[in-house]
Amino acid sequence: MRFSPLVERLMEAFRVLPGVGPKTAQRMAMHLLERDREGGQRLAEIVSLALNEVGYCQRCRTLTEQPLCALCESPRRDDALLCVVESPADQLAIEEAGGFQGRYFVLHGHLSPLDGIGPEDIGLDQLEARMAEGGIREVVLATNPTVEGEATAHYIAAQLAEQGVTLSRLAYGVPMGGELEYVDGGTLSRAFNGRLPFRSE
Amino acid sequence: MRFSPLVERLMEAFRVLPGVGPKTAQRMAMHLLERDREGGQRLAEIVSLALNEVGYCQRCRTLTEQPLCALCESPRRDDALLCVVESPADQLAIEEAGGFQGRYFVLHGHLSPLDGIGPEDIGLDQLEARMAEGGIREVVLATNPTVEGEATAHYIAAQLAEQGVTLSRLAYGVPMGGELEYVDGGTLSRAFNGRLPFRSE
Repeated sequence: MRFSPLVERLMEAFRVLPGVGPKTAQRMAMHLLERDREGGQRLAEIVSLALNEVGYCQRCRTLTEQPLCALCESPRRDDALLCVVESPADQLAIEEAGGFQGRYFVLHGHLSPLDGIGPEDIGLDQLEARMAEGGIREVVLATNPTVEGEATAHYIAAQLAEQGVTLSRLAYGVPMGGELEYVDGGTLSRAFNGRLPFRSE
Repeated sequence: MRFSPLVERLMEAFRVLPGVGPKTAQRMAMHLLERDREGGQRLAEIVSLALNEVGYCQRCRTLTEQPLCALCESPRRDDALLCVVESPADQLAIEEAGGFQGRYFVLHGHLSPLDGIGPEDIGLDQLEARMAEGGIREVVLATNPTVEGEATAHYIAAQLAEQGVTLSRLAYGVPMGGELEYVDGGTLSRAFNGRLPFRSE
């Protein structure tokens, strides 16, 4: 015996969510069916609505249900600084860290020729058009410090080389609050090579 | 900055699922929006359909979209044995363990006077009607080995005392494959008191 066909389909459907295996899917299905049908219906409505309505900001490509996102609309950001990130989640992380007051450009991925993901798929034609508008002084290439993220940063840097803008990349080094013992060798040697004069503030 | 209002609502909606905190909700929302809108739409449809269609089996109260569940419909089960469980998940666990060939009755909870959950809320009127049909020889009270499950088993036992059926309860003891060192005291003393003659088979 398993559950009834429709209950089985419900459990199976939850498997599209990241990190949800058979046991968790069963727990979710049982929770909604047994204890929160109203909350479940609300979830279904909002998932459907959001997947229909949320698109990309016409200017920075972040996720938004408006033509332009709130950050692109904001008059209080510095138009001369542009930060290129792989995902809206990366953008949020940088915003939450605070300090950056410029604009963003969201790639929604990284170059991956083997998967058929080329420059247009990550909006680099749009980035070029944005640069052509002028007014940008520095582009921070904040793609992930992974092989793909590095390659994407290098590609964009080459593309923008002629534009006369400063290109920068996030600093590499040991993470704050970590213990050296547990930092991987690649990061440690980067941090060593990039060591800075000691300042006792 | 946070995400756009609709993306925020999507993340919030995932919090109805058990074990989903803010970080997991964000990961789920981003995954569907960025990588699997089709799967997400399917999820929304099936959640909505299942919550509308799935009800209780008229006979055993397990979850099913049919008037009677497959197990109640099956001619190959022993009508003289009835196993009372708290949830469809418990029923499935017993079925998957194998060995039991009787019928079930699902309470969908346990007695909890403080939360206003009385005998009717867990279908005990329906259980009584089922017993009145006759033909049942033994009722296995397979509620959870918790305070509430025990209390519920005792209540049902008292209710069925006059019916002339055998009442049984799952055996208490140390779980298979566990180490005594990690078994709690209550379980260990139950296992000691219920010790059995050693058989070298």
